[in-house]
Amino acid sequence: MSDRIRLGIVGYGNLGRGVAAAISVNADLELVGIFTRRDPASITPASAGVPVRPVGDVPAMANEIDVLVACGGSKDDLPVQVPELVAACNVVDSYDTHAKIPDYFATVDRAARAAGHLAVISTGWDPGLFSLNRLFGEAILSDGQTATFWGRGVSQGHSDALRRVPGVAAGVQYTEPIPAAMDAVRAGERPELTPGTSHTRACFVVLADGADPDEVRATIVGMPDYFADYATSVTFVSADELARDHAAMPHGGVVIRSGTTADGTDHTIEYRLASGHNPSFTSSVLVAYARAAHRLAGRGEVGARTVFDIAPGLLSPRDPADLRRDLL
Amino acid sequence: MSDRIRLGIVGYGNLGRGVAAAISVNADLELVGIFTRRDPASITPASAGVPVRPVGDVPAMANEIDVLVACGGSKDDLPVQVPELVAACNVVDSYDTHAKIPDYFATVDRAARAAGHLAVISTGWDPGLFSLNRLFGEAILSDGQTATFWGRGVSQGHSDALRRVPGVAAGVQYTEPIPAAMDAVRAGERPELTPGTSHTRACFVVLADGADPDEVRATIVGMPDYFADYATSVTFVSADELARDHAAMPHGGVVIRSGTTADGTDHTIEYRLASGHNPSFTSSVLVAYARAAHRLAGRGEVGARTVFDIAPGLLSPRDPADLRRDLL
Repeated sequence: MSDRIRLGIVGYGNLGRGVAAAISVNADLELVGIFTRRDPASITPASAGVPVRPVGDVPAMANEIDVLVACGGSKDDLPVQVPELVAACNVVDSYDTHAKIPDYFATVDRAARAAGHLAVISTGWDPGLFSLNRLFGEAILSDGQTATFWGRGVSQGHSDALRRVPGVAAGVQYTEPIPAAMDAVRAGERPELTPGTSHTRACFVVLADGADPDEVRATIVGMPDYFADYATSVTFVSADELARDHAAMPHGGVVIRSGTTADGTDHTIEYRLASGHNPSFTSSVLVAYARAAHRLAGRGEVGARTVFDIAPGLLSPRDPADLRRDLL
Repeated sequence: MSDRIRLGIVGYGNLGRGVAAAISVNADLELVGIFTRRDPASITPASAGVPVRPVGDVPAMANEIDVLVACGGSKDDLPVQVPELVAACNVVDSYDTHAKIPDYFATVDRAARAAGHLAVISTGWDPGLFSLNRLFGEAILSDGQTATFWGRGVSQGHSDALRRVPGVAAGVQYTEPIPAAMDAVRAGERPELTPGTSHTRACFVVLADGADPDEVRATIVGMPDYFADYATSVTFVSADELARDHAAMPHGGVVIRSGTTADGTDHTIEYRLASGHNPSFTSSVLVAYARAAHRLAGRGEVGARTVFDIAPGLLSPRDPADLRRDLL
């Protein structure tokens, strides 16, 4: 019998592979199974010996799993899967549709309580670490402004939108913060920020055969919701250039809180992430919260939780006394 | 009867005044008393109507106080006061002698448990918010380096040391991080850092009448522990210049975690504080943790806690559902 925390992965895409890798570098964690909707035989896990099974096998294996890490997409997968999974197991996810978090929380909370399990939803970096910094900033500097800037990084949603444009064979979109807007927030100027004054969008596009570049460019920059409200650049590249220069998935951003205390002095707190590979970083956060979920469940806690509800010490494999001695 | 959380302040120096000011801008908090070892008549609180009493009156007033904010010094005041205060009340402090935190925690924990009260020790920004970021960085990027840089800011301990040098009439010392060292950590180079390769020290000194500037400078830069291991600059200024240009108490710094995930990609998390007035910022953190202490005590929790043990949502006056909707 192992003393390690036994984790299962549901969904083996970029995020699921990242979670498997993150588990492999944490000595207190063990990957006991990968669950998929695909044919299990089509998946070769990076760690040999890890069983790959149909997702329907989760309930039968529940006794061998401490926490499931749900790695599906927020649009179609998690809202369906997590309420079902939490009936069998504790679950951690990175649900990131901000506007629907209250409904999602309520649904998962109900299912988790009914089953006597614990779920930590919406971990990762945003929602997740960035949310924590929005909360700390506001709680400490009650008179102030919080602004979140994303990038420079690849936006999956905007890249997908780009690829749906007629005449686009392939493409990648980078979200970029506007330095002057960040500086104004840092300086305590409390600027009114709109999407277009906070970020620009840079598109790298491979044209389809025979497509008209001017027409493609005009269609992209005019797309409502996605690009029309932003200064958007479109750069045409070859398929080789796209593969060579734009295959990485960097992302990150910054949460800035600037505020004034009652004595009239100014203070700025800034939290910045620069990630070379978005799914790997998100996975590392998920795995730390899986550790916390296991500990909370071990105390008999049930229902849904978010990063706001979890004492930071629970994320670390180390003993509380060691943390106080070495890190406080 | 008030629904507000009733706070008392013990010690009314820079920090105590900052806590009073911070309470005044938080609608859910109420300052119900200031306790002092000085003659209470010698203190005029910024908020009219707040009673000022001898610290010995705390036990008699304990029923009217939800949480005491202990604002004394870490060297002589808190180790004596807090174990006594927590016998009567819940307490929050900003004890900041890093090396002695384990002993201090044990002493306060024992006293708090014996009395059935809760104590949150070592809040503020370091220890406090910086500690949290050291913990998050290590828990998420398990293979990496964490470095903390302080400044540019006024170091009270080093300013005091400066003023003890014969021939120094007055002076202020700024701790300054070395940009190249920060850049090396950010870049993931994992440099070996020593005190002297991480920080420089800038002293602004008013000479006493007849003192020899060369001798004073040599004594300062050669002081073991304080200055000898650093590139230290000494600038002589007039008393007027010192009062005009160096009376503010700015501080801050940065915690950088750079690490590599199992796929070989690099990530950097950076947490930066720039505070225009160190005691005001620390006070704002203390007050947020006083709110959390009240809530934890309300659940029947007893003993000592640190920032590692406290769910971030407890710092905010807002409802958990609102936090999820607006900040997650």
